[in-house]
Amino acid sequence: MPTVSTLQSLIGGRWLGAEANVPLHSALDSSLIYHTHAEKIDFDEAVTFARKQGVPALMALDFQQRAARLKALALYLMERKEELYKVSHLTGATRPDSWVDIEGGIGTLFAYASMGSRELPSSNVLHEGPVLALGKNGGFAGTHILVPRGGLAVHINAFNFPIWGLLEKFAPSFLAAMPCIGKPATATSYLTEAVVRMIDDSGLLPAGSLQLVIGSTGDLLDRLTGFDAVTFTGSADTAAMLRVNKNLIANSVPFTAEADSLNCAILGPDVSPDDVEFELFVKEVAREMTGKSGQKCTAIRRIIVPQKHVGAVGARLRERLAKIVVGDPSIEGVRMGALASLDQQRDVGERLAMLAKGNEILFGAADGFAPKGEGAHLGAFFAPTLVLCRDGFANDAVHDVEAFGPVSTMMAYNDLDEALALAARGKGSLVSTLVTRDPMVAARAVPVMAASHGRVLVLDREAAVDSTGHGSPLPQLKHGGPGRAGGGEELGGIRAVRHFLQRAALQGSPTMIAAVTGEYVRGAAVKEAPLHPFRKYFEELEMGDSLLTHRRTVTEADIVAFGGISGDFFYMHFDEIAAKDSQFGKRIAHGYFVLSAAAGLFVSPAPGPVLANYGLDNLRFITPVAIGDTIRARLTCKRKVDRNRVDEKGVGQGVVAWDVQVTNQNEELVASYDILTLVMKRA
Amino acid sequence: MPTVSTLQSLIGGRWLGAEANVPLHSALDSSLIYHTHAEKIDFDEAVTFARKQGVPALMALDFQQRAARLKALALYLMERKEELYKVSHLTGATRPDSWVDIEGGIGTLFAYASMGSRELPSSNVLHEGPVLALGKNGGFAGTHILVPRGGLAVHINAFNFPIWGLLEKFAPSFLAAMPCIGKPATATSYLTEAVVRMIDDSGLLPAGSLQLVIGSTGDLLDRLTGFDAVTFTGSADTAAMLRVNKNLIANSVPFTAEADSLNCAILGPDVSPDDVEFELFVKEVAREMTGKSGQKCTAIRRIIVPQKHVGAVGARLRERLAKIVVGDPSIEGVRMGALASLDQQRDVGERLAMLAKGNEILFGAADGFAPKGEGAHLGAFFAPTLVLCRDGFANDAVHDVEAFGPVSTMMAYNDLDEALALAARGKGSLVSTLVTRDPMVAARAVPVMAASHGRVLVLDREAAVDSTGHGSPLPQLKHGGPGRAGGGEELGGIRAVRHFLQRAALQGSPTMIAAVTGEYVRGAAVKEAPLHPFRKYFEELEMGDSLLTHRRTVTEADIVAFGGISGDFFYMHFDEIAAKDSQFGKRIAHGYFVLSAAAGLFVSPAPGPVLANYGLDNLRFITPVAIGDTIRARLTCKRKVDRNRVDEKGVGQGVVAWDVQVTNQNEELVASYDILTLVMKRA
Repeated sequence: MPTVSTLQSLIGGRWLGAEANVPLHSALDSSLIYHTHAEKIDFDEAVTFARKQGVPALMALDFQQRAARLKALALYLMERKEELYKVSHLTGATRPDSWVDIEGGIGTLFAYASMGSRELPSSNVLHEGPVLALGKNGGFAGTHILVPRGGLAVHINAFNFPIWGLLEKFAPSFLAAMPCIGKPATATSYLTEAVVRMIDDSGLLPAGSLQLVIGSTGDLLDRLTGFDAVTFTGSADTAAMLRVNKNLIANSVPFTAEADSLNCAILGPDVSPDDVEFELFVKEVAREMTGKSGQKCTAIRRIIVPQKHVGAVGARLRERLAKIVVGDPSIEGVRMGALASLDQQRDVGERLAMLAKGNEILFGAADGFAPKGEGAHLGAFFAPTLVLCRDGFANDAVHDVEAFGPVSTMMAYNDLDEALALAARGKGSLVSTLVTRDPMVAARAVPVMAASHGRVLVLDREAAVDSTGHGSPLPQLKHGGPGRAGGGEELGGIRAVRHFLQRAALQGSPTMIAAVTGEYVRGAAVKEAPLHPFRKYFEELEMGDSLLTHRRTVTEADIVAFGGISGDFFYMHFDEIAAKDSQFGKRIAHGYFVLSAAAGLFVSPAPGPVLANYGLDNLRFITPVAIGDTIRARLTCKRKVDRNRVDEKGVGQGVVAWDVQVTNQNEELVASYDILTLVMKRA
Repeated sequence: MPTVSTLQSLIGGRWLGAEANVPLHSALDSSLIYHTHAEKIDFDEAVTFARKQGVPALMALDFQQRAARLKALALYLMERKEELYKVSHLTGATRPDSWVDIEGGIGTLFAYASMGSRELPSSNVLHEGPVLALGKNGGFAGTHILVPRGGLAVHINAFNFPIWGLLEKFAPSFLAAMPCIGKPATATSYLTEAVVRMIDDSGLLPAGSLQLVIGSTGDLLDRLTGFDAVTFTGSADTAAMLRVNKNLIANSVPFTAEADSLNCAILGPDVSPDDVEFELFVKEVAREMTGKSGQKCTAIRRIIVPQKHVGAVGARLRERLAKIVVGDPSIEGVRMGALASLDQQRDVGERLAMLAKGNEILFGAADGFAPKGEGAHLGAFFAPTLVLCRDGFANDAVHDVEAFGPVSTMMAYNDLDEALALAARGKGSLVSTLVTRDPMVAARAVPVMAASHGRVLVLDREAAVDSTGHGSPLPQLKHGGPGRAGGGEELGGIRAVRHFLQRAALQGSPTMIAAVTGEYVRGAAVKEAPLHPFRKYFEELEMGDSLLTHRRTVTEADIVAFGGISGDFFYMHFDEIAAKDSQFGKRIAHGYFVLSAAAGLFVSPAPGPVLANYGLDNLRFITPVAIGDTIRARLTCKRKVDRNRVDEKGVGQGVVAWDVQVTNQNEELVASYDILTLVMKRA
């Protein structure tokens, strides 16, 4: 029997708690494993610490530097993951269940580190263009910026993913420079405590970045302002209660909820029992019913199948469920573990009774349920249970009552519209899967499903090879659904970071906008120096450094030669008769010639700091170039991003985007684009 | 004296109301002008009409078609604007005040019509890429789509902009296919009724698109679901009350608030009384204090100036305010009209008393206030009033009490940090202006101001020429601020439409994603036909139509010839010695040669339906092309947008984006980009 220790909160930079309070039990055999602490948390201290220590420390770093910290933290945790697996075992989770929580959580840190590095600036102002001219004289323009809010984030989480639940919210809020106070559900808070302790030990985060609350949030929410943010994952009822907190309402504190919902899977009308997709459907449903013992907010609760296939689906599901061995996951062959606590076991039982009313149990405890393991009869195990509802339109409970365990209800439809109507009866869910072979079925169904689901997975044999599954939120994709599911958005790439930043419209002269955003804006003051900007190292280059090239007259010979070398003999360049009838009324130069000639005008041929032109964005051909026109180019350093990278030889380099304007003899804009380069650092 | 008529609500497609209820008075002389109607509105009818008639009718159109309707509506209203000016006069507004409401509102319709046409697809699925590979075998990918929510929008508005207030919310929600129920503030609802009657008469909107509630919203909010949306503009107190409506909370109904706030203007520490910017500051403050008689949620309430310039700013403001003639705007020379009602007049007086406590009145009613006009002594006029607060840090009221009239408080700062701290004491505002000459002051101050303000205007002599002013929200830029200002976002370009759509992550095979989004995705099935896709008319082209070109071996002669024609003799292409030392270890072909040669491979030289290649996006050079490599291109129809346009000759055309992949002999991707073309319609 393990020593029963008291969990501690991390508040104001120190671990707090010695006296035992609420007992926590192992899900496997109900043995006592931890206590929460009895000492009261001073939330004024916690909030003050976040504001006075956390915010300045995070703001002392830029987006790129915070991304680098996330990566270092992810590496640190990954090396120590086995310690977490040991603790996770007590929650009743199998190794694959724990993988989702532990490595899924750490993987989310990696993903945000990587997305942050790719997509965010090396400053604390995220420019969300385009810059729009707001007047006729060029002196006034508008754009948007996103900046850190200067507040803190409170993340309140559910019991089912004690690690992933914290890390998936911590990662984007940390990138957004928000110190975070994590509050895990008490039942499994020992696992969150374990990971936070590891993070604290790493010393990788600035002081005040992360605090941990074991136990109640007390008056924490009453201390927040409109510059803070609250996220909540858990039941819709608790979400509704927290959302109306007087202080949150009075100060318009952003509140994001991700609530349990009755997710569904639809077997398309086109799929027959002989199709590969039929088996994919059954497999996905069985996996989602039993993975994490059904304790996933994304689990499939409603199985929507064509009337004619109800029997076949039921039979195949029974077969699969019968093979799933339930018990202590440390025993060889066990595929499904326990619910997280006896409270959950009772709750799921009660809700199953509500679902079963008027419906049939196709598979359940009666089918020989006996969890394996010493003391398992005392553990929080629950039999996989499949309910059949003959008329999904006549029953409200199956669309409303969520048994948060290995319990799903199957219902039938007659045509696709009925299937979509049944899906929408969930009043908003996190995720829905459509299994179909037919792109036309997907094209018709998915936009309808998308209105009531945060994520839609279309599964067919092609997708199945790589599919990450119905139940898995991914860092790159939005997690959260409308209505019943809470109406929130989490994850979804850099979108999630933006949710924790404050967007402001910015108006002013191009020079002022450039100064604020750190990005050159057309019309802003430029700096012209004797040295070609391509000869400056990354550190020396400044936004606004600019080169106005010499000129070049475009001749008929150029067009002819360019046609010969490119093989592009389009009539607009070569057919005097057709060109006369065209919109321009005459032969014009190739657009790609203009682009190539512009490069010839601004290139600096000898080896130098500019290593490569790896791309080009937003090219628009504006005025055609006719024979006899004389063009020149202006090249201006638009944006520098220091990703703190070095190449194989140890040479540092940064990304530099250049604004290019090609004009003609009348100062008309001929072509406009950005080029992307890698530029060496001197040091 | 005008006939006193009873205002009507537009519910379920008919105008309702005959019996008089609440009397409404002219702001100019308090004469009775309208009554609200006494008949109760059946909100079940209103909601059912929106759901059963409005939603299907709006969904029968696509984004482009709805944008076209908006434009037609804007033209219709603009032709009839003088009728609206007549009614607007009764609100106490001057012609410039009414211009903001009437032509600003109609202009917002034009702006959304135009942005919708430029940026939205000709379908009802808005694809928000990029598409991300989610596996190693290419069979599984993820992206995001935005779809109409299938619900309705309730827009609850303030009394100050009866027309703009409705139209600025109607435009984006209409584009998002949401039928709308507008509820104006009762005091000036007669002007909203006038414009809705005009819209109804136009017959330009599908049935159910727009309903109007005169009077109370009754149980309307209790009838909404998570697929609907509510917007509110008005006081923070009312916002807080509505936000906690049980039904809205239970169903996570999106609720957007835009509340009054204590916006500020900061005179930069670098500006001296001799600078042009000093006068710009005084002028902007005076204009914002008195425009619309100070009844703008964006008006400047706090004037933050360097300690040493308090006297000079005060003196110049007094001068300006003294020149502003207040009275009936129909009288020549009147520059400021009345408040909207006697209730407002009393309210502003009470709040001014709270602001004045412990502070000085620098200018106010005592300075000879006598509004012009017959009966003006009975009207809701109020004297422009300037309060001076000697210590802005010691006084809470000046940061918290908003007198919604021509009232502002000046306060002093010692350094920029103090100025920023004072600005933030507003706890979140809609807009802030910084007047400075120095880009470095802007670069330091604006990111801080942006955390607590929805919009920041940087004003200097350059911007002043075209500046739209502190108080003007623009359709292209976000309107709404954090905290006290309600935490909402309105306008901001197509962002506002997205707020009314539902975002869903979409996962599946490339073929399924292409079918759902209507956009070709790499890896999806392509259609190769004998006919070159550039020879197909817009109607005949299908997403996925593809051409795999013949091949071309790139030779040393090509590089030499391309250098000659472009003038680009970069060492990577021409200097064997330096190229050996470079990252690629040898000479490679120019990137722009690859681009040009690819065009030569897929061009179809004779005149045909493809009219022009007007741009190129997302070009990335991936694998370098060495001497002897053999390249080819795949050109695939990626996206079609039918903007329902015809050129000068009456020929219809659509926008077609093409996916281009250039590969080498090893099937490695060499270059990847999209090209943009205009393609003729056959009909």
